[in-house]
Amino acid sequence: MKQMTIGMLGCGNVGSGVYTLLEDMRPTIGHRNHLDIQVKKILVRDLSKRREGIPAEKLTANPEDILGDGEISLVIECMGGEEPATTLMAQALRRGKTVVTANKMAIALNWHILQAAALEGGAGLHFEASVCGAVPVIRTLSESMQANRVTQVMGIVNGTTNYILSKMTDEMRPYSEVLQEAQALGLAEPDPASDVGGYDAAYKLSILSSLAFHARIPYEHIHREGIEQVQVRDIAAGKDLGYRLKLLAIGKRQGDTVDVRVHPAFVPETHPLASVGGAFNAVFLHGHACGDMMLYGRGAGSLPTAGAILSDTVHALSHPEPDYPSFENTSHLHPSLTVTDNWQSAFYLRLCAQDKPGVLGHITTKLGEHDVSISSILQRKSEGDSGVPVIVITHRAHEKSLQAALQAIDPAIARVESVLRVEGVE
Amino acid sequence: MKQMTIGMLGCGNVGSGVYTLLEDMRPTIGHRNHLDIQVKKILVRDLSKRREGIPAEKLTANPEDILGDGEISLVIECMGGEEPATTLMAQALRRGKTVVTANKMAIALNWHILQAAALEGGAGLHFEASVCGAVPVIRTLSESMQANRVTQVMGIVNGTTNYILSKMTDEMRPYSEVLQEAQALGLAEPDPASDVGGYDAAYKLSILSSLAFHARIPYEHIHREGIEQVQVRDIAAGKDLGYRLKLLAIGKRQGDTVDVRVHPAFVPETHPLASVGGAFNAVFLHGHACGDMMLYGRGAGSLPTAGAILSDTVHALSHPEPDYPSFENTSHLHPSLTVTDNWQSAFYLRLCAQDKPGVLGHITTKLGEHDVSISSILQRKSEGDSGVPVIVITHRAHEKSLQAALQAIDPAIARVESVLRVEGVE
Repeated sequence: MKQMTIGMLGCGNVGSGVYTLLEDMRPTIGHRNHLDIQVKKILVRDLSKRREGIPAEKLTANPEDILGDGEISLVIECMGGEEPATTLMAQALRRGKTVVTANKMAIALNWHILQAAALEGGAGLHFEASVCGAVPVIRTLSESMQANRVTQVMGIVNGTTNYILSKMTDEMRPYSEVLQEAQALGLAEPDPASDVGGYDAAYKLSILSSLAFHARIPYEHIHREGIEQVQVRDIAAGKDLGYRLKLLAIGKRQGDTVDVRVHPAFVPETHPLASVGGAFNAVFLHGHACGDMMLYGRGAGSLPTAGAILSDTVHALSHPEPDYPSFENTSHLHPSLTVTDNWQSAFYLRLCAQDKPGVLGHITTKLGEHDVSISSILQRKSEGDSGVPVIVITHRAHEKSLQAALQAIDPAIARVESVLRVEGVE
Repeated sequence: MKQMTIGMLGCGNVGSGVYTLLEDMRPTIGHRNHLDIQVKKILVRDLSKRREGIPAEKLTANPEDILGDGEISLVIECMGGEEPATTLMAQALRRGKTVVTANKMAIALNWHILQAAALEGGAGLHFEASVCGAVPVIRTLSESMQANRVTQVMGIVNGTTNYILSKMTDEMRPYSEVLQEAQALGLAEPDPASDVGGYDAAYKLSILSSLAFHARIPYEHIHREGIEQVQVRDIAAGKDLGYRLKLLAIGKRQGDTVDVRVHPAFVPETHPLASVGGAFNAVFLHGHACGDMMLYGRGAGSLPTAGAILSDTVHALSHPEPDYPSFENTSHLHPSLTVTDNWQSAFYLRLCAQDKPGVLGHITTKLGEHDVSISSILQRKSEGDSGVPVIVITHRAHEKSLQAALQAIDPAIARVESVLRVEGVE
């Protein structure tokens, strides 16, 4: 049995989950992995706050009690946010302490700094819990894809938006109402921008696509759209045609061109991602050897996240040599790569057209002139004076061709009211 | 760059896939993992057979050319079958050569022998490819579940039977016809017994449940039923009620009691396993910390399997300390565990009843007397003289209670024609 002394930075929802789960699993981890893991000190902001099940003498407000303690060989960071987490983790790493973190923001924004600090200190850096909670997607990308060229990673990586979109789809209720309900239930933050604006998903995509493509894809290169403008009538029309709307984090690679974006998109109801409901997460991968693969599970929550953190912890303490991803990790995009803003996808369009002959002809002609071919077109019943709703699903086309085609449609004949992308189709 | 010399046992479909994929990926693995992996010798039965892309001078019919070569530090086994694979792997391990294998039969039947040989020789033993091809379920159970008590592992682990059942469901064609078609397409063996009889799935469940429950669950403790008797009319009736029929490999643990079985079972169409179609595999897990999780991907095929083998190979060559699972691996069931033959599940029953008053009353009374409560009951249109079909879906009940209840139903009133289990329900 190896005695291992660790420290923790932060003791909120995730941190207290880590402490409690470790206490619960200590005998099992001792038996299975021959490790006796003891938490010596936990950094907190407020020493006076009572924390159920955590001995007061383990708490400290002074980071140096952890970073300066030579007995502590590993630090679990669960403060969240970019700072002071990044600075504290970098200090720990430089002093040779392996870091396990759930902090997607710190990893996405400052990964190269943290990796440099880890190399300097000869320490390991582990972050399974930073993307999709309990879902072992970081380990799979790092340790099960060595013989694959991964060409696609496509995920539902934000539970809050998936909950909101699932509710809107199941109950046909508007965005603002479902968001308020999610806030009341604690499933969305009082300021929901990070989730509903797609920022959280973009941090995670930066991490996933960097690992998948073995080249740093910085956060600022990711095209990002949120779900704030999603209308329930589009969800309904898509559902009628056999599609489900999801907030997708998409990374694709073709040769040296990558396409990285977060936005709402329809997927066919037969696609494995379509049935990922509620607060669940899933990541769909395609590798040239493995083919299609999907990992599915709980993306958040105290216990699932704590489980991923402790799994990294046991792994790091069992393998003495430090571990990092195998690509050159810098602050900038790898010079051999180009990020395209003219990717391909299929499209869902909702137009409001005049109710007279030749209108569908005008729409299809303008799309055709810009190399956008149509997969299906559906003219719905007139809604009185406001015109006739027309739904178009296109085949795969370039983003810029589609935008040019939409510009060419005469708004006096047909007004474009919604444009959504469709993924997971040939 | 570390120079690594390896040997291979077997050069059939999987073996030649491994060789070709390694040639394809050598520069990438060199760049990413700083390993230059060279295959020195490949054991084959027939030296005269021409093998596309594989230099003839690498082939040998003498195992000693590999096992006795001190330069070879790792051996990839892809012969399949229990022998001579087990003997050759054990010899390699005892001589300190790490073994990577896709051989579910050898691992399921002789795992303890191979692990003992590995310990004796100070070598590693890796078998990701033995269960579900490209799906990283072995790595997930070994390296991502350290902080979980896994209580359930439930999988679609055999592609042949999933293909047959998916076809029967989609096209409502009988078993024998679909099997013949699958044989003609090379998706089922000329002698299909290992797949359709559930033997292949039982080998895999022995491996999965042993890892999930950290205690050896020998193959012979697994209850096994195949799909040979499945009738398309039951698939149709289940589909109407919102269920899909799958060949499931099920392991459940409650305290010290385990329940391990392979048989066809309905799952609700909303369950993540329901949408796993064709030749895909998936494993659904439940852990007390991670909650529900599912891994999905290609379960067979030369390239997906080769990808898993090479991933194990790179992993083993990058981590010099040998790796084994963390439970006491013996030939027998762990003495603290009991395998129950009286597990719980819900049931689907199809009865042929007399078309007269009181018949449904008789059925429901007999079920109720044996503590089997009914979730739904559906009396269908009479099929002439042969009686009225009655479909019953029960709530969860004990296997033995259900059997006793069926014994108590008077066959002159209602004849029990089909009994299928229903999983994935509360």
